[in-house]
Amino acid sequence: MDLDLSKFDFNVETLGECQVPSPLVGERLKFVSDDERIVAVSDSQELSRYQEELGYIPSMETAGPRAKVFQPQLLARAAIVTCGGLCPGLNSVIKGVVETLNQEYGIKDVFGIHYGYAGLADPKTYPPVMLDADKVDTLHMEGGSILGTSRGGQDVETMVQNLVNMRINMLFTIGGDGTLKGAAQIAKEIKRRGLEISVVGVPKTIDNDLQFVGSTFGFETAVYQSTPVITAAHVEARSVYNGLGIVKLMGRDSGFICANAALANPVVNFCLIPEDEWTLDGPNGLLKAVERRFRRKSHAIIAVAEGAGQSNFNGLGEERDASGNVLKHDIGTFLCDRFKSYFADLKIPVSLKYFDPSYSIRSVPASGTDQILCHRLAEYAVHAAMAGKTNMVIGYWNRSFVNVPIPVATYERHKIDINGSLWRSVLACTGQEKYFKGRSK
Amino acid sequence: MDLDLSKFDFNVETLGECQVPSPLVGERLKFVSDDERIVAVSDSQELSRYQEELGYIPSMETAGPRAKVFQPQLLARAAIVTCGGLCPGLNSVIKGVVETLNQEYGIKDVFGIHYGYAGLADPKTYPPVMLDADKVDTLHMEGGSILGTSRGGQDVETMVQNLVNMRINMLFTIGGDGTLKGAAQIAKEIKRRGLEISVVGVPKTIDNDLQFVGSTFGFETAVYQSTPVITAAHVEARSVYNGLGIVKLMGRDSGFICANAALANPVVNFCLIPEDEWTLDGPNGLLKAVERRFRRKSHAIIAVAEGAGQSNFNGLGEERDASGNVLKHDIGTFLCDRFKSYFADLKIPVSLKYFDPSYSIRSVPASGTDQILCHRLAEYAVHAAMAGKTNMVIGYWNRSFVNVPIPVATYERHKIDINGSLWRSVLACTGQEKYFKGRSK
Amino acid sequence: MDLDLSKFDFNVETLGECQVPSPLVGERLKFVSDDERIVAVSDSQELSRYQEELGYIPSMETAGPRAKVFQPQLLARAAIVTCGGLCPGLNSVIKGVVETLNQEYGIKDVFGIHYGYAGLADPKTYPPVMLDADKVDTLHMEGGSILGTSRGGQDVETMVQNLVNMRINMLFTIGGDGTLKGAAQIAKEIKRRGLEISVVGVPKTIDNDLQFVGSTFGFETAVYQSTPVITAAHVEARSVYNGLGIVKLMGRDSGFICANAALANPVVNFCLIPEDEWTLDGPNGLLKAVERRFRRKSHAIIAVAEGAGQSNFNGLGEERDASGNVLKHDIGTFLCDRFKSYFADLKIPVSLKYFDPSYSIRSVPASGTDQILCHRLAEYAVHAAMAGKTNMVIGYWNRSFVNVPIPVATYERHKIDINGSLWRSVLACTGQEKYFKGRSK
Amino acid sequence: MDLDLSKFDFNVETLGECQVPSPLVGERLKFVSDDERIVAVSDSQELSRYQEELGYIPSMETAGPRAKVFQPQLLARAAIVTCGGLCPGLNSVIKGVVETLNQEYGIKDVFGIHYGYAGLADPKTYPPVMLDADKVDTLHMEGGSILGTSRGGQDVETMVQNLVNMRINMLFTIGGDGTLKGAAQIAKEIKRRGLEISVVGVPKTIDNDLQFVGSTFGFETAVYQSTPVITAAHVEARSVYNGLGIVKLMGRDSGFICANAALANPVVNFCLIPEDEWTLDGPNGLLKAVERRFRRKSHAIIAVAEGAGQSNFNGLGEERDASGNVLKHDIGTFLCDRFKSYFADLKIPVSLKYFDPSYSIRSVPASGTDQILCHRLAEYAVHAAMAGKTNMVIGYWNRSFVNVPIPVATYERHKIDINGSLWRSVLACTGQEKYFKGRSK
Repeated sequence: MDLDLSKFDFNVETLGECQVPSPLVGERLKFVSDDERIVAVSDSQELSRYQEELGYIPSMETAGPRAKVFQPQLLARAAIVTCGGLCPGLNSVIKGVVETLNQEYGIKDVFGIHYGYAGLADPKTYPPVMLDADKVDTLHMEGGSILGTSRGGQDVETMVQNLVNMRINMLFTIGGDGTLKGAAQIAKEIKRRGLEISVVGVPKTIDNDLQFVGSTFGFETAVYQSTPVITAAHVEARSVYNGLGIVKLMGRDSGFICANAALANPVVNFCLIPEDEWTLDGPNGLLKAVERRFRRKSHAIIAVAEGAGQSNFNGLGEERDASGNVLKHDIGTFLCDRFKSYFADLKIPVSLKYFDPSYSIRSVPASGTDQILCHRLAEYAVHAAMAGKTNMVIGYWNRSFVNVPIPVATYERHKIDINGSLWRSVLACTGQEKYFKGRSK
Repeated sequence: MDLDLSKFDFNVETLGECQVPSPLVGERLKFVSDDERIVAVSDSQELSRYQEELGYIPSMETAGPRAKVFQPQLLARAAIVTCGGLCPGLNSVIKGVVETLNQEYGIKDVFGIHYGYAGLADPKTYPPVMLDADKVDTLHMEGGSILGTSRGGQDVETMVQNLVNMRINMLFTIGGDGTLKGAAQIAKEIKRRGLEISVVGVPKTIDNDLQFVGSTFGFETAVYQSTPVITAAHVEARSVYNGLGIVKLMGRDSGFICANAALANPVVNFCLIPEDEWTLDGPNGLLKAVERRFRRKSHAIIAVAEGAGQSNFNGLGEERDASGNVLKHDIGTFLCDRFKSYFADLKIPVSLKYFDPSYSIRSVPASGTDQILCHRLAEYAVHAAMAGKTNMVIGYWNRSFVNVPIPVATYERHKIDINGSLWRSVLACTGQEKYFKGRSK
Repeated sequence: MDLDLSKFDFNVETLGECQVPSPLVGERLKFVSDDERIVAVSDSQELSRYQEELGYIPSMETAGPRAKVFQPQLLARAAIVTCGGLCPGLNSVIKGVVETLNQEYGIKDVFGIHYGYAGLADPKTYPPVMLDADKVDTLHMEGGSILGTSRGGQDVETMVQNLVNMRINMLFTIGGDGTLKGAAQIAKEIKRRGLEISVVGVPKTIDNDLQFVGSTFGFETAVYQSTPVITAAHVEARSVYNGLGIVKLMGRDSGFICANAALANPVVNFCLIPEDEWTLDGPNGLLKAVERRFRRKSHAIIAVAEGAGQSNFNGLGEERDASGNVLKHDIGTFLCDRFKSYFADLKIPVSLKYFDPSYSIRSVPASGTDQILCHRLAEYAVHAAMAGKTNMVIGYWNRSFVNVPIPVATYERHKIDINGSLWRSVLACTGQEKYFKGRSK
Repeated sequence: MDLDLSKFDFNVETLGECQVPSPLVGERLKFVSDDERIVAVSDSQELSRYQEELGYIPSMETAGPRAKVFQPQLLARAAIVTCGGLCPGLNSVIKGVVETLNQEYGIKDVFGIHYGYAGLADPKTYPPVMLDADKVDTLHMEGGSILGTSRGGQDVETMVQNLVNMRINMLFTIGGDGTLKGAAQIAKEIKRRGLEISVVGVPKTIDNDLQFVGSTFGFETAVYQSTPVITAAHVEARSVYNGLGIVKLMGRDSGFICANAALANPVVNFCLIPEDEWTLDGPNGLLKAVERRFRRKSHAIIAVAEGAGQSNFNGLGEERDASGNVLKHDIGTFLCDRFKSYFADLKIPVSLKYFDPSYSIRSVPASGTDQILCHRLAEYAVHAAMAGKTNMVIGYWNRSFVNVPIPVATYERHKIDINGSLWRSVLACTGQEKYFKGRSK
């Protein structure tokens, strides 16, 4: 990790002192104290260096139930909102939040806000629903979000006023970078007004590109879902002479899904991510590399992250979506066009098949260990909100759940270290370097 | 069925009289005689009418092992070729042919021709492989075709000469309409030369649109594979306000896959097929119909066959693929564009997601009952070829396998009867008529 | 088919003359008349023989909407009951019945009876629920039956009285042989009392062993579900020296699932069904056959239907389940014990793995073309009930839906013809005959 | 973590000094030095305590390619052996080892040992195969082990002599606790003889119960595979009155699979693991707890680890398998019997369905992120062996791959901390405590 951790404030903001004994019960229950922390670094040498330079080891607060809570059970009312694009597990997190509030803390007033911040800003047009354990019983088996989502910010003061009107004192926001920054603004406005409303996020980024939150839910399922698509591309490519399969995968700024998909189904010959530059033309370019591959094997599979190769579009201007994210130029269809004309010019036959499976990947329910992550993130979000913690998200770091301040999590996008071991594994597995360089094997 | 059956010649062509006792053995073995036939019609009234008018009931030869065979075991050499687009089950048919030849008839010389008719026309560039039971042992678990395919015809005389050179006396062609017409030409040239080579086809049309062959392999798997994609479209559409999911499915001239997919996952609201005309604009048009749907439910799912709505492109000329099939204009992206601009003009928000899953659907292996169909079609193809039958395909009609002359099977595309019960079920299930007509429910 | 069709009365019983014009609408709507029929035989020779001997061709009434209905829309109230063991597609049939009643015929009063006939006999203990289109919207995605089921008969007079009390005039029974016989008794009692209640069944038999109903729902899905289990058995068996995998599949009296499963995943070496006798001991017995297989390949896979090999238990008495079905002795564990001791005696190492996947197979939702079958069977059941037809089930015969009298459908179990083409395909595919006989290949 | 780390020696044994420059190439290649280490603890307080008491923080060697290697490329010959029960991913690890040796280090002589240590002890009976990149190309898509496995130890001196005879200098052992202890003995004998053969293990324990190795391959896939079985149990149980589903899952000494399966499909009502004691009888026993559950919901799902509840069998003696593992008494069928008689005595109807899916779970291929783990563990195993490290396994700890001495990894079984957060989540999710105690909700 090349981040300088000394510049981060890992202390979690709170609404005030916890004075109410926790209503949690159970023979195996063990409360967690605010002093328990998980070190942010694992590398021995790095750890020593921080200890020497800072006098302490950067660490994060361990998540979990506190012996005393801030939100008194009788008055507690919660709201849940899901924002941005779909991601496997949204419904599982909703279920987890509702069940933990209901069954663990005895809190029954849980509002589901419809269509993201749009519903929080305009509850008349999009009225919220009450959620309870019955409604969410088998919700983990359904993809999407039963609450609906939307993109884009809304007026912060209006949203806070609506929270006040609804007498909410815990807001759970499930969303990505933009959503969390919105949540931070809501928390700021709450503080300005002196309100006692916890704002706790469950980070949703299918790209897995937030800092210090370790695994984000949905990522693992997305990698699983990519496997049959890559297999389809492989089958198609191998069943014709000079078959070329191009699979576009998610990843606007980071290539985690693409890199992991290539390792998860190691039939990919070229993995193209935003972090590692490559050129299209010239003797070391991608076109030539695929031509070399055809000579050896007469088929090739390319996995490309949507944010890869954007330098090919220099000078074409940029557009943004409703959430303010820069819209990437479509590298997938661009590659298709260029490959077709390249091989047509060379009079080399090519049979190109293009796959863009993003919606199919992201709309499935989370399953297996990813499902577990959803449930546990939700549990810990409730524990944090009940303890009056705010402006924070739940992370999973070194096998412990941690409370992470939103400014830390959203400081900058987490990216693949192209000199690190993950990318090295991808390069070894695809063997793409030798085609780019024309190195004979 | 509105076809006039009196114009078909259901008699199967043969190379000559069978004189060699079949090498088949087994306690449960029962040979089939050429006199056994399956009636081509099932409707009582229709059947009586034919009987009255023609003096006989149109029927097809029952497929199966004959007590005497034409091809003597010691000299028998077979070749298999797969042509055209991929379809679930190609490898299963290959496996079935090889195993039946090897294990039932004791024939070991089985050539796999590479890349379709291209490999038959040019075996030097694309040398064939020998296939045996070991090579095909678990082949049914793999999608695609291990032999590879190609589109387009090749010089018939060259192909026949290559069959002669390779001393092949049974050619198994696995392919669709164009492939079978090619096979018919090969059979004709073989006859012209007085050669003793059986040409037997296993019809491959994922669209299930051949006459008198009943179910074709791959179709059932394609319908299964469409279900998760339609579910994805449904999840995406329901998770936003005015979500519109458009799923393009296979079906150039007939809407069987699209209609069956809509019934198999009855969340589709509009099913658009080539057989049933619809307009885009106007008070009874599709645009208005979706607008009406949005008012009631704020989400909609459209399943559209690739050959549907081609009248929207009148005047735009036509292109053909290497096999001579007319390339359909892209109705999927056309609909996307028109919906976006329609709702933009009305200032109605819409969130449109487009799905084009064809390659993912067709590249999986056949499974379940579809797998069985592959294996049995292959068995019966071998029985037919061994009996010296030629210029024919295997069909599955009224729960019996039948030998169908290629000219009958390819007479014209089988299509959905839009006044029939299948289409009625689709209309009932989608409820699309009431939106088109603005009928309130 | 070896059944003598002359002894069947294919005429469907009706409650009386249809006098109310059908409320069905739709541009593509085509009513079916009672004169339309589908021939019960397809074999040309058989058909001629019947025509000659009987003076007519045995045929069944074509199912579908009639121009006039018996049940007046305003008074119509329906009840649905599901009985017996689970089967893929139960919920889909329920959904289809409810939607067709609601959306096609405008009938809103649809009762779901809980826990099979137990709920019909005792609605106080198990009160029914009202079903409507909203409740069944995505029901096709769930396995099992939301109504619950039970085994066993109940007092017929009590059940009929409860139908009267609830003012039901259409009863839809979804169940197998026993359930349908119960339905016939209910219909008889209704007739005795002169009531106007239609009793229409959708036949449910995962074993696919009813006469003249062609495909029954759930069977196809069951075959699909068997494939991964057989693959697991194969993987386990091949990963050890002398690995033996035994998979027990459903099929008390007929081996359709087992035979089809063996063809659908052709890695099975021995397929054992109730219809074809085999011995365990002796030179031609199963034990010796597996020993021979081990010598050649050092692994073996057995698929055995639960009703196979019952002669091994002669003299052990018999038990019956609550529905009166004879409980089969457990052939699966019996084989395990015998194989272990046989090879232990011979001091031949064997690693035996046993699979009993029945509950996992039958509890999934129907999908793909099986899902379609459910929906269409339900549609046609409603059309029949509305037309006042009773004491009948819906069948699917020669690609048409037909109305089949219950006494015909339940006349005797449909079984695999061991001299027919299906069983021949299985024997060819497994190659088991050569191991039983010790025939060298 | 309650282990006292001071007693472990985390230093990895080596065959000698690395003197040969690594043949690895690549633009992104970064060698790892032996000084790089990952701290074994993450908890801040624990970390400080160790630092204070020991003067250092316990840590493990970072895995990865070294700049200099021990094994000279030209003479290097490797062998791979897989032992014990199947586990998802065995073939993927084999593929990863072969590809890394071939493509990264240029080593072509890779032997696959058949049937585990049996093949290493007796290569004449079970001759090894040569493995290369072509043979393992799509091996990751197949379950099981192409090499075959066996249980039980073999004579160490014989095995070492066979390694010498085959001129192997790197042995990769893929197996569990017993296998690794065997590998340690082989390494010891190699050392005694002064040979230069690296022995590197990839730990295989589907139960995920080794110390300091973090995630083991196959575990994640096993959790995924458990979900549909639990869903089947749930569907069956809900479709009858007082339905009881019992699912037995793997886990002889630790309940990780069972606990994770219950969280991954949170419809489980009772999760029973070896670590947390429970009684069957009495007012706080399981029988009574299920009775209470029936009163509230009339269905219940139990997930039970195979090693749970063994105290019920006290006095029944113990058996061991060929590997020396104590064979657990069959808790699954025991529970079935006891539940049946308990409810029969009370005259409470119960419909019990039992599921024992272990072989189906473990015989699938690894997929998704689990597949990645396999590949990367294999890569790091090769890097370690090439660097002359021995008597060690690869672990994955705090998001880094580490080299772990075998004695550390096998010190004692890793178990679920029943006072820790994982088990707390399970208890919260199942709600089982309130049924055991009869606490009303």
